[in-house]
Amino acid sequence: MTGNPRNVAVVGLGSMGLGMARSLIRAGFDVSGCDLSETARSALAGAGGRAAATPGLAAKGAAAAVIVVVNAAQTEAVLFGEDGVAAALAPGAVIVSSATMAPGEAKRFAALAEAAGLLYLDAPISGGATKAGSGELTVMASGAPDAFRAARPVLDAIAARVHELGPDVGIGSSFKIVNQLLAGVHIAAACEAMVFAKSLDLDLARVFEVITQSAGTSWMFENRVPHILEGDYSPRSAVSIFTKDLGIVSDIGRGQNFPLPIASAALQLFLATAAAGMARDDDASVARLYAQITGLELPAPTEETA
Amino acid sequence: MTGNPRNVAVVGLGSMGLGMARSLIRAGFDVSGCDLSETARSALAGAGGRAAATPGLAAKGAAAAVIVVVNAAQTEAVLFGEDGVAAALAPGAVIVSSATMAPGEAKRFAALAEAAGLLYLDAPISGGATKAGSGELTVMASGAPDAFRAARPVLDAIAARVHELGPDVGIGSSFKIVNQLLAGVHIAAACEAMVFAKSLDLDLARVFEVITQSAGTSWMFENRVPHILEGDYSPRSAVSIFTKDLGIVSDIGRGQNFPLPIASAALQLFLATAAAGMARDDDASVARLYAQITGLELPAPTEETA
Repeated sequence: MTGNPRNVAVVGLGSMGLGMARSLIRAGFDVSGCDLSETARSALAGAGGRAAATPGLAAKGAAAAVIVVVNAAQTEAVLFGEDGVAAALAPGAVIVSSATMAPGEAKRFAALAEAAGLLYLDAPISGGATKAGSGELTVMASGAPDAFRAARPVLDAIAARVHELGPDVGIGSSFKIVNQLLAGVHIAAACEAMVFAKSLDLDLARVFEVITQSAGTSWMFENRVPHILEGDYSPRSAVSIFTKDLGIVSDIGRGQNFPLPIASAALQLFLATAAAGMARDDDASVARLYAQITGLELPAPTEETA
Repeated sequence: MTGNPRNVAVVGLGSMGLGMARSLIRAGFDVSGCDLSETARSALAGAGGRAAATPGLAAKGAAAAVIVVVNAAQTEAVLFGEDGVAAALAPGAVIVSSATMAPGEAKRFAALAEAAGLLYLDAPISGGATKAGSGELTVMASGAPDAFRAARPVLDAIAARVHELGPDVGIGSSFKIVNQLLAGVHIAAACEAMVFAKSLDLDLARVFEVITQSAGTSWMFENRVPHILEGDYSPRSAVSIFTKDLGIVSDIGRGQNFPLPIASAALQLFLATAAAGMARDDDASVARLYAQITGLELPAPTEETA
């Protein structure tokens, strides 16, 4: 038996996990969830889910568990630690592992899951909190055909697009890591360029307009520069996400003697921004770091966003 | 008098200048052009233009001169050097200056032009050789209303879009410089990410497909990665363009104590790629540099492109 296929656990109820839980509830699943934050647990209960005190209680008898915690260490703890998910899931259930992590860690967890009689899908996500809530995430997934089959109803509920990247766990994580390398560099470059433009006394709104129509544009430039123009650094995605993700990129590079000068420069900028007290602010805060250093003034928050 | 308004000189007949000359000829202008290369001069003659031996002869009596040489030093030489454009143009004619340069250089040339009784439009271009040939460039222009008015027929013939960025010469150049900062960083990041993906043993064609649908994408990623996938490093835009343009970015940063860690990392990569013998190859050759350093193999040229 593989448990009741309508029972799904979601462990980690941050902005992404909670959004995914809502999408699953809307799709008719019985969702039980777990998070250290009381506020997050209440939000799940308010959305029609069941808040559990431990990962194990959330996963008890479920056919699938979606793990949306911050990193590999937390994923390992909630899966295989005390009161963990793996020991509680129904035999043959599938773990959908969505935290960004090094591919080697994903492989290690998949082997442990297999030893426990469980399926494992390496399934990092992208798209942000809004798309998590609307069930329109992008999933970069790899794993055995059985794992895909078992996870399919869950994927259908949370994702607009599932990239099926191969049968080996680790590929999904590798794709996500490459994406994060680019995303992090593009955010840091956007911030560097916008404050540099300010130093040249340019009209920043005009710079945004011209660059987004030119060869210098990027998805991140288009998405993050409006935060700078509005002076709104409330965290849609925090600086700490990129110190973490570019940290993983850096670890992998060092592990295989692969030089990453551009990604490393970006990592150092996110670290400097975090060190300046902005770790929990929006990642466009790298622009505020440049402005602080150079004594330039960026747009102040409008009344709406202040 | 301002010369015959149908007489336009184009100085610098590289892939951009020649394309712009063709667009002007197609729009009915009498185009005389000048370039050090005999091949380029013949190509202009073949396209219906008139090849001249010096910038001055090309500009003699023209109402407008488009300067599309490599940098500020060349622009200064063809405008104000021996047999230069400025002394040959009709009084009140307009100089359309399209080489990428520091805004301070543009201002200096505009002052010299004004002293010679000429109008000056600071008008860097973007879009590549194909759009130059089809008359669909993007122009980032600034200058006095009189200069815009005088240059309008020329701009209409060469550009799909003219950003009118203000009355002060230097603003157009500043916008172009900000665009080049981002473009250069994005190319270097795309190359770093693609070879890093190779080190993770990923299918590069699949990486291109997934990233272009994700938050990690950029205009340059979409445009340059196909060169890597096809193993085709024939120069659509050469490495030397970015050692030059990021060099200007770096000079400006140093001149005003503005730190540019991301742009500097990218500049060093383009310099390393040039030092490795690829200065005249396509700028996606930064990927070949990473591959050489790490001993990884990138796609070989297909028969079509070899």
